[in-house]
Amino acid sequence: MGEQSKASGNGAAPTVYLTRRAEFSSSHFYHSPSLTPEENRQLYGKCNNPHGHGHNYTLEVTVKGRVSEKSGMVVDLKQLKEVLNREVLNVLDHRFLNAEVPVFKHLIPTTENIAVEIWRMLEPRLEFCELHRIRLYETPDLFADFYGPEA
Amino acid sequence: MGEQSKASGNGAAPTVYLTRRAEFSSSHFYHSPSLTPEENRQLYGKCNNPHGHGHNYTLEVTVKGRVSEKSGMVVDLKQLKEVLNREVLNVLDHRFLNAEVPVFKHLIPTTENIAVEIWRMLEPRLEFCELHRIRLYETPDLFADFYGPEA
Amino acid sequence: MGEQSKASGNGAAPTVYLTRRAEFSSSHFYHSPSLTPEENRQLYGKCNNPHGHGHNYTLEVTVKGRVSEKSGMVVDLKQLKEVLNREVLNVLDHRFLNAEVPVFKHLIPTTENIAVEIWRMLEPRLEFCELHRIRLYETPDLFADFYGPEA
Amino acid sequence: MGEQSKASGNGAAPTVYLTRRAEFSSSHFYHSPSLTPEENRQLYGKCNNPHGHGHNYTLEVTVKGRVSEKSGMVVDLKQLKEVLNREVLNVLDHRFLNAEVPVFKHLIPTTENIAVEIWRMLEPRLEFCELHRIRLYETPDLFADFYGPEA
Amino acid sequence: MGEQSKASGNGAAPTVYLTRRAEFSSSHFYHSPSLTPEENRQLYGKCNNPHGHGHNYTLEVTVKGRVSEKSGMVVDLKQLKEVLNREVLNVLDHRFLNAEVPVFKHLIPTTENIAVEIWRMLEPRLEFCELHRIRLYETPDLFADFYGPEA
Amino acid sequence: MGEQSKASGNGAAPTVYLTRRAEFSSSHFYHSPSLTPEENRQLYGKCNNPHGHGHNYTLEVTVKGRVSEKSGMVVDLKQLKEVLNREVLNVLDHRFLNAEVPVFKHLIPTTENIAVEIWRMLEPRLEFCELHRIRLYETPDLFADFYGPEA
Repeated sequence: MGEQSKASGNGAAPTVYLTRRAEFSSSHFYHSPSLTPEENRQLYGKCNNPHGHGHNYTLEVTVKGRVSEKSGMVVDLKQLKEVLNREVLNVLDHRFLNAEVPVFKHLIPTTENIAVEIWRMLEPRLEFCELHRIRLYETPDLFADFYGPEA
Repeated sequence: MGEQSKASGNGAAPTVYLTRRAEFSSSHFYHSPSLTPEENRQLYGKCNNPHGHGHNYTLEVTVKGRVSEKSGMVVDLKQLKEVLNREVLNVLDHRFLNAEVPVFKHLIPTTENIAVEIWRMLEPRLEFCELHRIRLYETPDLFADFYGPEA
Repeated sequence: MGEQSKASGNGAAPTVYLTRRAEFSSSHFYHSPSLTPEENRQLYGKCNNPHGHGHNYTLEVTVKGRVSEKSGMVVDLKQLKEVLNREVLNVLDHRFLNAEVPVFKHLIPTTENIAVEIWRMLEPRLEFCELHRIRLYETPDLFADFYGPEA
Repeated sequence: MGEQSKASGNGAAPTVYLTRRAEFSSSHFYHSPSLTPEENRQLYGKCNNPHGHGHNYTLEVTVKGRVSEKSGMVVDLKQLKEVLNREVLNVLDHRFLNAEVPVFKHLIPTTENIAVEIWRMLEPRLEFCELHRIRLYETPDLFADFYGPEA
Repeated sequence: MGEQSKASGNGAAPTVYLTRRAEFSSSHFYHSPSLTPEENRQLYGKCNNPHGHGHNYTLEVTVKGRVSEKSGMVVDLKQLKEVLNREVLNVLDHRFLNAEVPVFKHLIPTTENIAVEIWRMLEPRLEFCELHRIRLYETPDLFADFYGPEA
Repeated sequence: MGEQSKASGNGAAPTVYLTRRAEFSSSHFYHSPSLTPEENRQLYGKCNNPHGHGHNYTLEVTVKGRVSEKSGMVVDLKQLKEVLNREVLNVLDHRFLNAEVPVFKHLIPTTENIAVEIWRMLEPRLEFCELHRIRLYETPDLFADFYGPEA
């Protein structure tokens, strides 16, 4: 019986949540077609400027899994990084979200909606682990957490 | 059927947790009337100094809600900020908590108790959204989380 | 009936989660005896270098408890700090984990495994409070959370 | 002879550098009319995308002066904040720099050039103190310092 | 001729600036006897509240020296830490500066003045190295630098 | 006469300092052959452990130059990054400095000495710009600055 089994207390490998942080820089603006121009200005303030403005977004991707006795890891970090780059960062980084990322032509790119969409972009490609949470910081003082459509 | 519905996978708008961070600077000291002077010094150390000392507190307020299809948000951020300023920051910022904030005349202003009181100050005023968590950092190395009296 | 009872809404003291952060600097390398040398290099990359490399680890220990009406705290912070120093920091700080910390002679010192072992080192010594979570940052961009063997 | 005089050792008030930090969010892109399209892509990479992308810029304004015996300060912080808001933040925050800020229609809005222009916008309005340095962070990993045209 | 001599290019040991960061928590308020009550409120705003308020100050002490060929250091860090604790942190930490630290009974404890006083407290005790700069953060967004009375 | 010339006030392009930050993780230990074992333990404490321990080092490279009117930059950032990776990060990252980096077989790898050596590794390869400063953080609380052998 190995060290790890003792740690988990019952022979099963322990469950750990692993989080990888990444950054991307994008621009966006907020405009709701369901609101009048005046209501848009009222609700969104400076964020309603159609020229757009930008942020250094910080993304935290948390996956959940049992620690592999072979590798000591819950996920192959290189594989996770590769999927994250291909499916998310290459799509959003250095883009004007409203104009260049199709889903945001009709969906307002708020922090909430971007977090939900990142889940949607990433979850089907993570067949090798379980996605637990997407956290997205728009600034150090504002962030959104999404735990999936069933949560 | 809109983009957002597809994201949530079942027609209902997705549930997201939104966190807003704010700062305030206050002073306080710790003294328990249930303890002797010696026990107070023993338990609280330098924090027992009745002249008080101070901190830059960092507060994180997390609300939970479904993303509005109209606004793309779970809460009107301007409304949240206004309530947070009026009900919490204006009361605590640049104050000597023990002497100037009535509830702390009889309640020791520990990080734990301040977090609970901020919940109590804020929750009844947030009728437009659901308060999920109050996190309060006394320093970058010490913080308390409160999820409400029922949690 | 005191202020605190009113805060909790039902006479019971409120439950709060308290987190203390600490740092330690260690070195380690990754090598799995279940893998060939080539597989080890493939999986772990530069982390497979047997000379080791190092990190400033940041540890967050979260305990959970009811706020004592007497002290205003969920745990005596001096006691928590003392146990944390004795049981964890003194064992891991300024050490080459693979060579000097017995459990890591056979267990790969990944972020996941170190987090689980810190729980195991700390939990039996915290008889005065309930351990809720161990969070361990290897770098600001990578961290693991462990909620105990039963979670 | 006052305490302060003794501190400075020779009767004159001590010289101190005071720095105020602020943030703004803008979008921009890089394109040089002196370069071919291919050279632009080669030099600027993803930053050449004409739709723009964005950043949370962090600005540090450092002023230099003798500590006033009357106020204990080198500058009235409220006055400094007011000028900073009016002359810089209101002009740059939530703007697409290339399209909306006249000077950047012909000047490439690199971190270097934005830092120089902030000096130019601010310096003539700070007749009540001496501007020493503009530091501008585009991201936490890239920043520019400008000490004025004579430096 | 050693490695180090080659590094410096001319046989002399290279000159390096070493900075040690530390934190302390104090409370203070601003009131100038040279101003009327109304002028005090006007100039200092909420900081004029005589009950005081507090901060987690971050202090950076920079010393300058040639790298010792024997130790590879410009200063014995344990010695520096000991002096810093004894002369500065023990005096200011967990104190109400206006009431408990004699020099601030007559000198307004602004960030500027505290930085100057820390220089004055520390410099005569650092006979084993040269003090170059005191940087004091009142908050992450406001800090003062002092380079000594002759600078 | 262009915008930029006006900014610099005299027709010459303005001089700006540009800083790029990077990270690497290494292990090391301190032992001076000029000291007895007891003196080594006394001076270096836990850092004298020959198994080594490690850090996430943060490196800031500052270059100085006139802003190019053509590119708006003082240096081609891709070129700077390439040289930094090849000459410094590839040599130090994920290494046991004492055993694997030749210069540190005879030179104690203190923060001071590593900063000086990074200058020596980098400066001859930066023929396209002027190196101004190497800043190296061993932890967030300790860092060394080196301005070159002539400074």
